[in-house]
Amino acid sequence: MVGTITEHGFNKEQIEFFGSKFLIGNGFLGYRGTLEEYTKHELVACTLSGLYDQNGTKWREPVNAPNPFFIVAQYNGEDMSVLKRKPAAHMQSIDMQGAVHSRQTTFDNGFCIASRRFVSMADKHVMAAEYTVFCEHGGDISLNIKIDSDIWDLNGPHLENVSLNHKGGVFVYCANTIELKEKIVVAQKAVSAHAEVFETGSGFVIQKAMSSGETLTANIYAAVYKSSDEDIENCESAAIASVNASARLGFEKLLAANAARWQQIWDDVLVTIDGDKEAELALRYSTYLLLVSTPFHTSHVAIPARGLSGQVYKGAMFWDTEIYMLPFYCCCLPKTARNLVLYRINTLEGARRKAKEYGYRGAFYAWESQETGDEYCTEYNLNDIFTGRPIRTYFRDKQVHISADVVYGIWEYYKMTGDDEILLEGGAETIFECVRFLYSYSYFKCDKDRFEILDVTGADEYHERIHNDAFTNVMTKKALEAAARVIEILETKYPEKLANIIEKIDYVKDKKAIDDFKNKLYIPSPQKETGVIEQYDGYFKTEDTTPRELKKRIIKKDEYLGSPNGIAVNTQVIKQADVVLVTALFDKDYTLDQKLANFNYYEPRTEHGSSLSTCIYALAAVKCDLLDYAYKYFMRAAHTDLSGDYKLYAGDLYIGGTHPAANGGSWMVAILGFGGLRAYEREVSFEPKLPERWKSLAFRMYCQNQKFEVKIAHGSIILNSFACNTKEITFVIYGKKHKMQPGAAQTIKY
Amino acid sequence: MVGTITEHGFNKEQIEFFGSKFLIGNGFLGYRGTLEEYTKHELVACTLSGLYDQNGTKWREPVNAPNPFFIVAQYNGEDMSVLKRKPAAHMQSIDMQGAVHSRQTTFDNGFCIASRRFVSMADKHVMAAEYTVFCEHGGDISLNIKIDSDIWDLNGPHLENVSLNHKGGVFVYCANTIELKEKIVVAQKAVSAHAEVFETGSGFVIQKAMSSGETLTANIYAAVYKSSDEDIENCESAAIASVNASARLGFEKLLAANAARWQQIWDDVLVTIDGDKEAELALRYSTYLLLVSTPFHTSHVAIPARGLSGQVYKGAMFWDTEIYMLPFYCCCLPKTARNLVLYRINTLEGARRKAKEYGYRGAFYAWESQETGDEYCTEYNLNDIFTGRPIRTYFRDKQVHISADVVYGIWEYYKMTGDDEILLEGGAETIFECVRFLYSYSYFKCDKDRFEILDVTGADEYHERIHNDAFTNVMTKKALEAAARVIEILETKYPEKLANIIEKIDYVKDKKAIDDFKNKLYIPSPQKETGVIEQYDGYFKTEDTTPRELKKRIIKKDEYLGSPNGIAVNTQVIKQADVVLVTALFDKDYTLDQKLANFNYYEPRTEHGSSLSTCIYALAAVKCDLLDYAYKYFMRAAHTDLSGDYKLYAGDLYIGGTHPAANGGSWMVAILGFGGLRAYEREVSFEPKLPERWKSLAFRMYCQNQKFEVKIAHGSIILNSFACNTKEITFVIYGKKHKMQPGAAQTIKY
Repeated sequence: MVGTITEHGFNKEQIEFFGSKFLIGNGFLGYRGTLEEYTKHELVACTLSGLYDQNGTKWREPVNAPNPFFIVAQYNGEDMSVLKRKPAAHMQSIDMQGAVHSRQTTFDNGFCIASRRFVSMADKHVMAAEYTVFCEHGGDISLNIKIDSDIWDLNGPHLENVSLNHKGGVFVYCANTIELKEKIVVAQKAVSAHAEVFETGSGFVIQKAMSSGETLTANIYAAVYKSSDEDIENCESAAIASVNASARLGFEKLLAANAARWQQIWDDVLVTIDGDKEAELALRYSTYLLLVSTPFHTSHVAIPARGLSGQVYKGAMFWDTEIYMLPFYCCCLPKTARNLVLYRINTLEGARRKAKEYGYRGAFYAWESQETGDEYCTEYNLNDIFTGRPIRTYFRDKQVHISADVVYGIWEYYKMTGDDEILLEGGAETIFECVRFLYSYSYFKCDKDRFEILDVTGADEYHERIHNDAFTNVMTKKALEAAARVIEILETKYPEKLANIIEKIDYVKDKKAIDDFKNKLYIPSPQKETGVIEQYDGYFKTEDTTPRELKKRIIKKDEYLGSPNGIAVNTQVIKQADVVLVTALFDKDYTLDQKLANFNYYEPRTEHGSSLSTCIYALAAVKCDLLDYAYKYFMRAAHTDLSGDYKLYAGDLYIGGTHPAANGGSWMVAILGFGGLRAYEREVSFEPKLPERWKSLAFRMYCQNQKFEVKIAHGSIILNSFACNTKEITFVIYGKKHKMQPGAAQTIKY
Repeated sequence: MVGTITEHGFNKEQIEFFGSKFLIGNGFLGYRGTLEEYTKHELVACTLSGLYDQNGTKWREPVNAPNPFFIVAQYNGEDMSVLKRKPAAHMQSIDMQGAVHSRQTTFDNGFCIASRRFVSMADKHVMAAEYTVFCEHGGDISLNIKIDSDIWDLNGPHLENVSLNHKGGVFVYCANTIELKEKIVVAQKAVSAHAEVFETGSGFVIQKAMSSGETLTANIYAAVYKSSDEDIENCESAAIASVNASARLGFEKLLAANAARWQQIWDDVLVTIDGDKEAELALRYSTYLLLVSTPFHTSHVAIPARGLSGQVYKGAMFWDTEIYMLPFYCCCLPKTARNLVLYRINTLEGARRKAKEYGYRGAFYAWESQETGDEYCTEYNLNDIFTGRPIRTYFRDKQVHISADVVYGIWEYYKMTGDDEILLEGGAETIFECVRFLYSYSYFKCDKDRFEILDVTGADEYHERIHNDAFTNVMTKKALEAAARVIEILETKYPEKLANIIEKIDYVKDKKAIDDFKNKLYIPSPQKETGVIEQYDGYFKTEDTTPRELKKRIIKKDEYLGSPNGIAVNTQVIKQADVVLVTALFDKDYTLDQKLANFNYYEPRTEHGSSLSTCIYALAAVKCDLLDYAYKYFMRAAHTDLSGDYKLYAGDLYIGGTHPAANGGSWMVAILGFGGLRAYEREVSFEPKLPERWKSLAFRMYCQNQKFEVKIAHGSIILNSFACNTKEITFVIYGKKHKMQPGAAQTIKY
């Protein structure tokens, strides 16, 4: 059993949070953890992956489909809704095994609702729900079922030419998006074994006079199609055929098919922690949230910053993908990791357009990337809470590290998989265009005989337009090294293909210049006396204070603390890990003393105002041998979406939803941190440092297309190479090499 | 007669403005145009030149001496003060001929006050006042005279260990400054030919029972000494001796000595405009205001941004000196111009310290420079009017153009005077250190094979931390060219001395690098289609609006419009001339079409929110042949301190006072603009374009230490070389050369 997440009791104030917490999905769409009687006011959303729309000059964001799971039960003429009548007992849960949402509600009049629903992982278009009511005292029941087309949008509406027809017992909602005229079809069929199902103009009605203790169950079979899906010609007939097929199969069989597919996935990704079930559950839940938003089916979209939990952050993909999520996929789901890498390759043109827009060469990847790779971040992102005026932020303009992050992602994927094809299919070209951009962005300081990267925003977004940000410069250096290594590899293995790529993008001259850039790029290094790396030029000269002290200056709740004039700007208070992100990712480049010095310096100055922060501090803490701290912050990161301990607003901008970066980051802490996994070009290494309370950490992983089972205990690692493997892989445990033949099993002491 | 500035009537709301408007002074001290009965609440100030003090962590600013001109008259026991009794008639005036302030007040009870006062230009320590009362109806009169030591300070107090003694009929105030422990002495003696003068513990009292129509006159003789004055050993005895000597001489003789010295000065600087007495008076008044704040006596201070009218802007010297004032002095008072240039040479160490503080080499001249040349601008200069929080501005950090402006100033002085000695006495060293700084600040953009100057603030201060500001880059280029030319001159004339300078500052290696910098520095140039120069990288991409439209968005009066988040920041609205300052100063580098294009583009986008703006637009308008516009803006600039049409607050920061930059700028428009004067290394040229209503423009000037009288009319110039001249000077009139032998007179048609 993977595990179940359950909450008892009903509290109106948690509707928004539970909507995210009890999210289900299959990567094609996400369906928020709302109740059947909810509407857009309770933030019901069926968020489609990879379909974006812009209405006028409003923000471009993902399209939400109408809700095919809307049901209101009436009991003796009264709506049995938690919004209207406080329930006597209420429970909501997710069974992560098959991503099934359940709900049970009992009212004081003896009326009970129990429901289950899922979005099929076996067939991405299919959704199904089961809704059962029970009357302790008997009475008249009416179930009103419809496709609720009154959609919750942040910047909508996005659908026009809406029609609702019913054909042969199926309701079919059709509409098209405003910008791209993509067609959306949602079909719905209601079925009940216990009563007749009537069709009205707008939906289904099931009515029954119930006797005491009687139960009535209805099923909804729904399908969502959009014209952009490559596998469909006629969405409408496909959707109708789908719901009819579902109805024929029935709920249980659909559920079984879904569960089987989920079982395959869990088989690859399940982590088991003996001795700490709380940590295990939180980590599995983090993994679960990643999975429901994972684009298994396409390489034209990645994982949005709030997954498929809504339209926040424009449903856009950020650098979170490469830094926080890709490690999980590279290790556990390399085929999906390939999709994520291909997404960047597929959107290279958008990044080229962005570079050109700003007067640079190469590829400048977007801060907020949608399906085309163009930058969809606006210049004004939030409003000044004191004046109501829009604030000019530089997320879009100055986060040049994203191009370096993209290179880092491709390279990490390559190291773990050895997938030469990805380099030849655009990976090398993407890498070259990224470093070319970084070169064209950089400046040479003659006086100091070095290249510098000026006027950037790093990982810590509170400080914009700074010079020589540690994270940006280090990521750039790593990207340059990866680019150089890729050239070496291709020169050796595929010299002609490399020549073609270089010729195609006219890279000959740049090759030498960029090599010079690599050798002379300034890297902020640990200061001699303290070992601390200055986050950016002049950071140490800003006011030295702590988040706690700083926050005493807050005048208005939700006031934005960052650039250009938030209260953090001229202080050393940072939003999230920046230098520590460097020492966490590239811990081998620094001594333990240096890592500790930076950890101890920056941790008290970090607000952790982003869900990208605590997981990195946890990871860094492992590398600093601060296991208690690491465990504490790991738990905080892994519980992000369980506890709801995150910001709902930045300025006046709503930013709620799930947090895939924290979900992926938690996995990083567990496997790369406590597990100590690290990928090299031809081998993997482990340097485990398990928390004391963990008896063992077990998981499966892929390396170079070979599958392994790993169980790490204190002092020993058990490695199993699957029998289906085809080649030997070297594992390096604390510096000592162990060769694993296919089918072999070893217990290695460390 | 030079002219008189007079205002009739009394209006409380104009007290502050008149205090500046009726300023008197001698460059050693300034005395605001307040009335005798005023106190610090009416902003009485006796502002000392070149003596600065810092009290704790408050702003360092000039020291105000106590007021030795305080008199209150009582008539039948009642104070005859305009603050307590509205006068029936009131007049205040300045006779610019001798810088004498007069005041006449008549109350409805028949009591009249008439006073005159001056600060001696003949002896910088001497102040004298004459105070006469007249009783139409007779009655008891009492004059209470004292040194008012309750000082108006912006960031005081600055004086401690205060004592007040009277010795032999002289009151002596002694104190020392807090920071440097400089001693200040103010001595005062009151004398009356009509009544006995009593001494109380705190001052003088003159009492008399007056008959109808009787007049009573008292004189105050005062002296101000400070221990930093190089010529004085014992300030106290010197001050006592001074007032006793003054009293022996009497008011009229002191006045005559003062007038004689003023006559010498006016002889050099008086401008006569036939046909436009209004313009003439305004221009003369502008000149007057410059003169009262001019450091005739020292090269250790220049002209503060608000002259000697108070402590605003910390009494600091800005780049205004070089760009807006120096042209006047180079032309009319070259010995004083030398002082101003020497001030920069004398403060080179401060500029070196500032460069070092920021991690650069060479000399980074201060935005707010005081007697040491160190930067006294603070990081936080004003407060956010919405939150009350201090605003981080970058005036101090990023106005690197100031070092280029200093070079420009020295070079312009050198061209006009041929003063080789200034180059050998530190001028060359200063120039080299300035360009060395600019080189060490700049970056090389490999992709574009050019140097760029990044992260600066230009002349337009609303837009901070911008890249490749047109004004900054052009000024830097000009500085580099001047530096190269200085090397050529010294190589030819003084090769050994040049070698010594280069060795002293280890400039050998830099010489070549900086030459490369000169050749490859990026200069924003007119765009091909429009001819418009982009003010800085990305300026054209900001919102295009006008000051009028922008100001509709103002929520609170006095809200600051500039960086980091004022409403002008993300728009094309600029505070003052920036590109147009370039085309005005270096008009020969641009075609008429280009100048016009930039004028027409930037003028509607300029707020003229600085007194440095209108004069430059007037000058540029002349160069564009837009004489009507030029005249209008010339009049506005020349009337700045007459009309009081200037900002009193930036944010919540008081910035009132006189405006030497506008005063000097008005002179520039008249002589360099309408007169068309331009200095070259060995000659001067005229390309006059007189306003239609001007019959002629007459003035005297120096060139290469030779004195000339110039009278420009429409179509002709009359040149007189003074008989005392020693060498021939070439005048180029609209391209045609005319050699002027000593004593020669020529009328040249053009």
